[in-house]
Amino acid sequence: MTKSVSIFGATGSVGQSTLDLIRQHPEDYNVIALTANGNADELAALAKEFSAQVAVVADEAAYDCLKQRLAGTSIEASSGPDALIAAAGLGADWTMAAIVGCAGLPPTLEALRSGKTVALANKEALVSAGALMMAEAEKAGATLLPVDSEHNAIFQALQGGQIQQVRKITLTASGGPFRTWTREQMASVTPEQAVAHPNWDMGAKISIDSATMMNKGLELIEAHYLFPVGLENIEILVHPQSVIHSMVEYQDRSTLAQLGSPDMRIPIANALAWPERMTTNCEPLNLVEISRLDFEQPDESRFPATKIARAAITAGGATPAMLNAANEVAVAAFLNGAVQFLDITEIVTRLLDSYSPPEPNALADIFAIDKETRVRTEQLVEGLQV
Amino acid sequence: MTKSVSIFGATGSVGQSTLDLIRQHPEDYNVIALTANGNADELAALAKEFSAQVAVVADEAAYDCLKQRLAGTSIEASSGPDALIAAAGLGADWTMAAIVGCAGLPPTLEALRSGKTVALANKEALVSAGALMMAEAEKAGATLLPVDSEHNAIFQALQGGQIQQVRKITLTASGGPFRTWTREQMASVTPEQAVAHPNWDMGAKISIDSATMMNKGLELIEAHYLFPVGLENIEILVHPQSVIHSMVEYQDRSTLAQLGSPDMRIPIANALAWPERMTTNCEPLNLVEISRLDFEQPDESRFPATKIARAAITAGGATPAMLNAANEVAVAAFLNGAVQFLDITEIVTRLLDSYSPPEPNALADIFAIDKETRVRTEQLVEGLQV
Repeated sequence: MTKSVSIFGATGSVGQSTLDLIRQHPEDYNVIALTANGNADELAALAKEFSAQVAVVADEAAYDCLKQRLAGTSIEASSGPDALIAAAGLGADWTMAAIVGCAGLPPTLEALRSGKTVALANKEALVSAGALMMAEAEKAGATLLPVDSEHNAIFQALQGGQIQQVRKITLTASGGPFRTWTREQMASVTPEQAVAHPNWDMGAKISIDSATMMNKGLELIEAHYLFPVGLENIEILVHPQSVIHSMVEYQDRSTLAQLGSPDMRIPIANALAWPERMTTNCEPLNLVEISRLDFEQPDESRFPATKIARAAITAGGATPAMLNAANEVAVAAFLNGAVQFLDITEIVTRLLDSYSPPEPNALADIFAIDKETRVRTEQLVEGLQV
Repeated sequence: MTKSVSIFGATGSVGQSTLDLIRQHPEDYNVIALTANGNADELAALAKEFSAQVAVVADEAAYDCLKQRLAGTSIEASSGPDALIAAAGLGADWTMAAIVGCAGLPPTLEALRSGKTVALANKEALVSAGALMMAEAEKAGATLLPVDSEHNAIFQALQGGQIQQVRKITLTASGGPFRTWTREQMASVTPEQAVAHPNWDMGAKISIDSATMMNKGLELIEAHYLFPVGLENIEILVHPQSVIHSMVEYQDRSTLAQLGSPDMRIPIANALAWPERMTTNCEPLNLVEISRLDFEQPDESRFPATKIARAAITAGGATPAMLNAANEVAVAAFLNGAVQFLDITEIVTRLLDSYSPPEPNALADIFAIDKETRVRTEQLVEGLQV
């Protein structure tokens, strides 16, 4: 049976990987909506290739270009935040939510409200608006499929039992490029050293998050919303080779794990074909070649980010959203040379200690808190500027 | 809901472990039949503890003792091969088939014919009579749950998909105590050196099978019958720590694995509670303490047993049953000092090359082939005697 799909963030890395998988199985998928931020050229080309019904650019300045590129086709062009929400309401069986940042929240929420299946690659949906998203998903009977390699691994391992039978979830972490460094050594690292991730080819922001281990803090927040086993039952385990993507231990002491090559198409394929499994041409895992997997306890005295994230989950309300916004500003400041590497988590801590907005009840509240957090974090950065 | 259970081989290691788990959840299980070979004392004590309906000793000489120990209770005592079959026909929801050797075949077959669930710990059921057992299980609509840690791991990993979506099954192997030894070094090993298994506390026969890697050959035969993915899609991977008990790679390139401490109660608990999961007090897996997992290609030039097993599966018919019987005789000869360590696989090879009985169609044929193979292997042993 053909599955109708919409991809929000079609020209980004996750969107491209999703389309690559659909390209391998064109008979199984029917594309409804494709969206991009401002790359009208590429979006138009993809919309034509996949015979989409609708193509949307978030940036209204790109509308004319999109309209022109789609002239003579039956593909509807539109633009702006409301057009994104309208596209999310078209009722695709399966929606990939891969827009980066808070801009992805309104269409993701709209897709969940349709009660269909949403594959989640947008971090903010759970980090900044987790309680809201989960409540809306439950109300609408929507299915939320995690696409992040760790959360997708947990989702797959959970096929072997029920969430009530889980004793412990283990999120694995590469430990980043400074896994074996002292705080003193980390004090003087450069952005160039920090963006060199050992296992995955990623953008600069995510690479810095991996180096501070804030990526694991953010994933902990997501895991907490996705898999309600109690925060004290979600552990982090440093595993430098990133071959085991995460694990679930059941109450009978069986642990199920998902393993794979570092290729985002593997978890995306799982979400795309679920509850079936599709064939992919991804590299199979070769454990003989990898030869060895290592494991160690995370060291929160050297990498406080996961401790900060745990405290943010416990504090609840707006705190995870603030953590995310403050971290983004702090990472940008580090990449610009404005602050030092160890300042990143220090800035986040100071922001969380100095700002206590009321609990958000709607996306508008989250946007306001996100904005205010960024302003306040910029001020903290200015105070620390090197 | 209470599950009615019968345990064939209740006084052995697997039987004891099963009863230990039931002891932790007495309200969930109702014991129908318990059987033992000749240990009437212990069987009677267990039958009383668990309020069994029936207690059976295979050895008729133990009947009087059993009868006496059960005097004054409502537990029915019986003995002999036909009593075992009758007990298997009592229709327990769940039967543990843990009798050692070919004596376990008739009651296992009878339990499968009842169309209920059979947890399989008896090796011969699949190694010597795999085609027959699987055909009877399918005909009766019975569910066969593997208890061996490797096959149970595969069974659990298969909960994440369907067998048709499997690309590869990987049976992990510790590699045994001589994993890094040359053939020259292995030529002079003693039974004492060979019974020292690195990870599991096992009996002498199984330890020798681990040292020759014939255990993996036998497990390959079992896996071939349990998981019909094609023999060429079942690989063996040496993994000295035996923490990953086996793996399943799906066609989307996701690999699911089951991990756990070396405690047979973990796979037994999975089979006992399936499709639910029970709590156990087994040791949780501690990967920080284990610290490292290694993987390497098996070396069939040093350890030919798995190659012999593959050829036996391809030959089909009686060959796997012959392999099992010949291996048992050869291992006993090594333990008695009659032949050398490297002679074990050599004897098995010679037997398989020199005997070609017709294809077995019933258990009686398998028993006859087993018996004749043992006689012929004894003759080969005499020819090689040191």
